[in-house]
Amino acid sequence: MTDIIRTDAVIVGAGPVGLFAVFQLGMVDVEAHVVDILDRPGGQCVELYPEKPIYDIPGLPEVTGQGLADNLLAQIKPFAPRFHFNQMVSALERTSDDRFLLTTDAGTRFDAKVVVIAAGGGSFLPRRAPIPGVEAYEGRSVFYAVRAKDAFRAKHLVIIGGGDSALDWTLNLAPIAESVTLIHRRDVFRAAPDTVNKMRALVDKGVVDLFIGQATGLIGENGMLKAVKAKAEDGSLHEIAADAMLPFFGLAAQLGPIADWGLNLSENLIPVDVKSYQTTTPGVFAIGDVNAYPGKLKLILSGFHEAALMAQAAARRVHPERRMVFQHSTSSSTLQKKLAGA
Amino acid sequence: MTDIIRTDAVIVGAGPVGLFAVFQLGMVDVEAHVVDILDRPGGQCVELYPEKPIYDIPGLPEVTGQGLADNLLAQIKPFAPRFHFNQMVSALERTSDDRFLLTTDAGTRFDAKVVVIAAGGGSFLPRRAPIPGVEAYEGRSVFYAVRAKDAFRAKHLVIIGGGDSALDWTLNLAPIAESVTLIHRRDVFRAAPDTVNKMRALVDKGVVDLFIGQATGLIGENGMLKAVKAKAEDGSLHEIAADAMLPFFGLAAQLGPIADWGLNLSENLIPVDVKSYQTTTPGVFAIGDVNAYPGKLKLILSGFHEAALMAQAAARRVHPERRMVFQHSTSSSTLQKKLAGA
Repeated sequence: MTDIIRTDAVIVGAGPVGLFAVFQLGMVDVEAHVVDILDRPGGQCVELYPEKPIYDIPGLPEVTGQGLADNLLAQIKPFAPRFHFNQMVSALERTSDDRFLLTTDAGTRFDAKVVVIAAGGGSFLPRRAPIPGVEAYEGRSVFYAVRAKDAFRAKHLVIIGGGDSALDWTLNLAPIAESVTLIHRRDVFRAAPDTVNKMRALVDKGVVDLFIGQATGLIGENGMLKAVKAKAEDGSLHEIAADAMLPFFGLAAQLGPIADWGLNLSENLIPVDVKSYQTTTPGVFAIGDVNAYPGKLKLILSGFHEAALMAQAAARRVHPERRMVFQHSTSSSTLQKKLAGA
Repeated sequence: MTDIIRTDAVIVGAGPVGLFAVFQLGMVDVEAHVVDILDRPGGQCVELYPEKPIYDIPGLPEVTGQGLADNLLAQIKPFAPRFHFNQMVSALERTSDDRFLLTTDAGTRFDAKVVVIAAGGGSFLPRRAPIPGVEAYEGRSVFYAVRAKDAFRAKHLVIIGGGDSALDWTLNLAPIAESVTLIHRRDVFRAAPDTVNKMRALVDKGVVDLFIGQATGLIGENGMLKAVKAKAEDGSLHEIAADAMLPFFGLAAQLGPIADWGLNLSENLIPVDVKSYQTTTPGVFAIGDVNAYPGKLKLILSGFHEAALMAQAAARRVHPERRMVFQHSTSSSTLQKKLAGA
């Protein structure tokens, strides 16, 4: 467990809106740490549109997701934000002195006066397998990702899915597993043609069993799987012996742990007050695509505006003793100096 | 009188926010004409900061007012906005078919379904002379600007002020006026030193009378001036014969005729509903520095957000029959085509 990082603000999400929040907070002298589940800044904007032009950022007639992220990183450089990548904030709790303790799944801990949720549509997390009772096995014998291949050595393995993830792991784990059964609802696969051909060759050689049908239940105890119940295309019922199962039902944008923070979510969005973009929890703000208010449009430019108003309210919370004077970047010589030095 | 221009929307103000409103309206298929009192686009942003760097436009780490205006003009080019410069909208009236008739002081007339006020801090208009009853003479014998020198030929003229405007017109009109009296509250002038020297030379020669003191009242009838009452530094009272007066008390940002449009102004700002940035008059919107709502910050980036939400509501008014589908520039192939062709 690392030391607790004490800071003014923690920004959850390093997409364009999270990045610009660093700027707006910096303008009012509030220092920020930024946490993101991805391994670099830019969020889904960079993940989804690294090279695709975006036309509706005001003043940037045409920019790629990567270009926008690069510009924003240059813009916030004077405020020296500290980034914590490859992790997500898994717990948020209010402390007795009206601050917040945040913990990430990588063990990083923050003690902050202000929390800014700029998590966009959430993280892209694997879809849960639609099999009754699967929760009891997750993390023990049912896995949505392979962290270490060796965990499956000499195991009876069931893999479910028809895309690249399912077929790639079928090819990769077949050599070390005791057996591999690939279950897919129909005999058509979305994976790359070459991968499909390789899988079919293993099936022809008897190295992989291909089962066309659907997994309908699990047999086992204490989270340890013994068999997967499955129904074939002809309606016949089967039990496939299994020590472990890897379901690949694709990814879905999910809020993740944020959904458990008591922020009165409405349709997976966080309601905010448009004076300050504060949530129902004083000190916790939500900006960008993650929030909800009357008239809301999921535009990056709206997130920028929300960041500006949020910063004013955040500064009153972080520096209650100061008389707030609103300054433009053009009218403050102190700010001019700081920004021009970038 | 020109023909009436029938259009979807008239945008009052060609500053950065007015320009971006063209983009947001274009995205929802609402065509716009833009009116501005200045002779070019960019508004006060270009007037005040043509070369000064602005640091707080998201995604543009450092940009000049002119650079921002140029970028926005490039961005809205696909929507072919039509500009009407050097004029201000002097009258706005609702017509019987729930549209608006707008008239500019240059005689241009528009028949529009939507009016978007993006007038910023207003226009810089001359400050009214602080002399009781001056309104009765304005435009007849009291003028805040010289349109034609010849109007002052052979007149007894009083000029008030100590800056460049007052002294330049003293030098320019002395040769043709019957007499020129320059009134200034103290014997110190803010005008260029060379101009001050030239004025003092005319005073020494007896061509110009210099009166150190203050104008306190006007004598005349039916708007025609006969004399200006003035109080000297020693407290003595004087009457200076005058056919015309030119007071130069500097410029002040004023809303101008907009103030008379029944929009329930509050401290010279226009209250709006933050769901749509509509004013109390349905169909009339106000965005950017001219509007007021709880939490308002006078930031260009906030005006951009306001333009986006305004456009959704404007489109519902212009195209009530259409089912509104909100589209991102990245997700609509029609928009991509239009925008990429810029």
